[in-house]
Amino acid sequence: MTVDQTAVDAVREDVARLHDHLVRYNLVIWTGGNISGRVPGHDLFVIKPSGVDYDELTPQNMILCDLDGVVIEGEHSPSSDTAAHAYVYRNMPEVGGVVHTHSTYATAWAARGEAIPCVITGQADEFGGEIPVGPFAIIGDDTIGRGIVATLTGHRSRAVLMQNHGVFTIGKNARDAVKAAVMAEDVARTVHISRQLGEPIPIAPAAIDSLFNRYQNVYGQHESTEHPTGALA
Amino acid sequence: MTVDQTAVDAVREDVARLHDHLVRYNLVIWTGGNISGRVPGHDLFVIKPSGVDYDELTPQNMILCDLDGVVIEGEHSPSSDTAAHAYVYRNMPEVGGVVHTHSTYATAWAARGEAIPCVITGQADEFGGEIPVGPFAIIGDDTIGRGIVATLTGHRSRAVLMQNHGVFTIGKNARDAVKAAVMAEDVARTVHISRQLGEPIPIAPAAIDSLFNRYQNVYGQHESTEHPTGALA
Amino acid sequence: MTVDQTAVDAVREDVARLHDHLVRYNLVIWTGGNISGRVPGHDLFVIKPSGVDYDELTPQNMILCDLDGVVIEGEHSPSSDTAAHAYVYRNMPEVGGVVHTHSTYATAWAARGEAIPCVITGQADEFGGEIPVGPFAIIGDDTIGRGIVATLTGHRSRAVLMQNHGVFTIGKNARDAVKAAVMAEDVARTVHISRQLGEPIPIAPAAIDSLFNRYQNVYGQHESTEHPTGALA
Amino acid sequence: MTVDQTAVDAVREDVARLHDHLVRYNLVIWTGGNISGRVPGHDLFVIKPSGVDYDELTPQNMILCDLDGVVIEGEHSPSSDTAAHAYVYRNMPEVGGVVHTHSTYATAWAARGEAIPCVITGQADEFGGEIPVGPFAIIGDDTIGRGIVATLTGHRSRAVLMQNHGVFTIGKNARDAVKAAVMAEDVARTVHISRQLGEPIPIAPAAIDSLFNRYQNVYGQHESTEHPTGALA
Repeated sequence: MTVDQTAVDAVREDVARLHDHLVRYNLVIWTGGNISGRVPGHDLFVIKPSGVDYDELTPQNMILCDLDGVVIEGEHSPSSDTAAHAYVYRNMPEVGGVVHTHSTYATAWAARGEAIPCVITGQADEFGGEIPVGPFAIIGDDTIGRGIVATLTGHRSRAVLMQNHGVFTIGKNARDAVKAAVMAEDVARTVHISRQLGEPIPIAPAAIDSLFNRYQNVYGQHESTEHPTGALA
Repeated sequence: MTVDQTAVDAVREDVARLHDHLVRYNLVIWTGGNISGRVPGHDLFVIKPSGVDYDELTPQNMILCDLDGVVIEGEHSPSSDTAAHAYVYRNMPEVGGVVHTHSTYATAWAARGEAIPCVITGQADEFGGEIPVGPFAIIGDDTIGRGIVATLTGHRSRAVLMQNHGVFTIGKNARDAVKAAVMAEDVARTVHISRQLGEPIPIAPAAIDSLFNRYQNVYGQHESTEHPTGALA
Repeated sequence: MTVDQTAVDAVREDVARLHDHLVRYNLVIWTGGNISGRVPGHDLFVIKPSGVDYDELTPQNMILCDLDGVVIEGEHSPSSDTAAHAYVYRNMPEVGGVVHTHSTYATAWAARGEAIPCVITGQADEFGGEIPVGPFAIIGDDTIGRGIVATLTGHRSRAVLMQNHGVFTIGKNARDAVKAAVMAEDVARTVHISRQLGEPIPIAPAAIDSLFNRYQNVYGQHESTEHPTGALA
Repeated sequence: MTVDQTAVDAVREDVARLHDHLVRYNLVIWTGGNISGRVPGHDLFVIKPSGVDYDELTPQNMILCDLDGVVIEGEHSPSSDTAAHAYVYRNMPEVGGVVHTHSTYATAWAARGEAIPCVITGQADEFGGEIPVGPFAIIGDDTIGRGIVATLTGHRSRAVLMQNHGVFTIGKNARDAVKAAVMAEDVARTVHISRQLGEPIPIAPAAIDSLFNRYQNVYGQHESTEHPTGALA
């Protein structure tokens, strides 16, 4: 298959620019964190280079990889989390974007290995219930990717807290995954603060279902960044 | 009645610009949160569109609605909270502005269904006592609006914490409601932090009354954004 | 005595500009908080107007008052805290600047009526020991000013936590008082966070004395914003 | 030995510019905090002047000192922490940069005299285990420097929490030490927040070793700011 360079360039542009949200919402520090986006119609994805400052990210220095994580185009090394992103793309064809951060509150829940209970309607809207915990994994091979896929497959949540590590989010495209990363930290922070002074009131499962279904189908300008009920595709 | 386009345009300008305060004070993330303003002398209000980025909000893309929440002018869908705003305008004629956010500390109190006790003089000044809790409500009809109106009617507070959800504030106009949203989060945060290490000292009811009455009548440059004692109008 | 207009203008410029620090360090929201500075050689001080937005503060709209708090020059009303500032200037001739904020952590300690113990060396340097609590006071007359003066007279600390209210700081000049306001919030936050997970280690009184004496005499470029040991003048 | 002015100027430029990170990550307030960098091939280092505003720092007003902390070039006084920096450079020849801040969360742990346990993988990557505590020290002589060197010699961590005081970090060069200061505060904050609601899960020592070794050898663009396993040089 020949590569559609216009499609690649669009994803390069999109992935480079979306990193601004990670900075703006204080989800990352130094050169930590990364975003990737699948090139539609190709077995390729675009990901952030490793160890490059956020204000030096451009469409041109993003890295193009195949679904084994092998660099196809790129002068820098790809993100050290590339293997995890690649594993997700290989095994979840409905996923078009992946984000990883060590955002403070999400990582604080992850360090305790504790899922975030669904006690605010914004979490029911966005994640359809609790944000789950994935396994401890340390190695630069497929271990992290397998943990993400095993936890999120068949789960409403687009976010997983990897134990002692940080948060990975998935989405229909890179923008959707970034939105999930922003909302996951917001939920993690709000529920943490609520629990500091007592027990939040649980939301009944039927109410969570109702909120999730309505939000996935009704909210917003029906743009392509929102995904339908219970699935990304 | 013919529509006074100058009046509509002034509210469009005002409502669009006021959203900057929600961003500046970190009360909102992504496209969440919304502000509306009544068009003086008309059964109309202007509200934020749904799902549009904050840096793309302009007077032109604000949505004009009637008091049933039906769109009169606007290319985008109105905020998904439009029904709640409309219900407030229909039932509280003294209200000229409504704001909704999921600001962190206010939502943390709301998730526990706990009113914020009046332990700082700034809260006595601005809200005249505790910030109350409204009912849990999930549906996109009048349920949220009814909860707001039932809680705030006859109450000094211009802010209500909707259980498990977030905060709604009202005001004489949109700016006044925005001020209430900013102050509500500040009060929620300060009282939360104070309570983390012990019990704050209550303020005696007579002192609260004195502070509230003085502030509503004396403070500021006697501009129209301040409302007289115990009522918005 | 004739008024030295150059001296007045210099203080107007200084006081207007210094408010930027209150915004930059998140010590204030909306139009809250205020700074004043004494006009050297005159029974006059310059203070922020009431209810004016921070980005609209200019040397020209600052208010010039006499030491009874009576407006000498100014189109706006002076800060609603003007009586308290005036009382301090009348009763503490060594004070050249006063700042008032409701900064979050300082106010959280104030709401519990609890002094901040000296457990970090930066607090020993800057305040020479604990930051004390002043009385509850609600009225727009001299009550607040009397509480400030009674608490800070003969005390090393340039900051006082007014119970249930907020923080007042004093200094040799307005800049020195602003520095004290910035440092007071930093100390209030750091000690709060330290105490959340256990008891901080006290610093021995002799070590506090040593730190305070050294800092007051050695630190910085020997500029006029630093005050000598144990007194402002 | 003649001084290589180009080398001195490069370090002046680097040290001045790196202070922007301390501001951007909210590690410092007012004129607090300082960075220094060794001049390669010389017994000299460049350090921030004392008591100068952050937005007035330039390559020209940085201070050049010898390894006894004596000023060689500079109109201002050097940082009041110069003796501590000098002691480190004299006694740890592999160190090319030193940073000191009173960043909030690191100082909160320091005030309790408590090391930060290694419960997040980012800490294992960057610090290879816990962040240790150094002794209480108050005097402007070598006491602080001796505490830093005694604690960090032979330790994987490039950061030390000085009891009741703040944090010092070291690195191969100034940028590496700044990165350590940024990461130390992030770790201090995340672990603090995690512990607020329960006990974080420890990471097994073998997993910490594996993470540290991999990160020190693999991560990033193999730039000179990363240091090899277990040592700075």
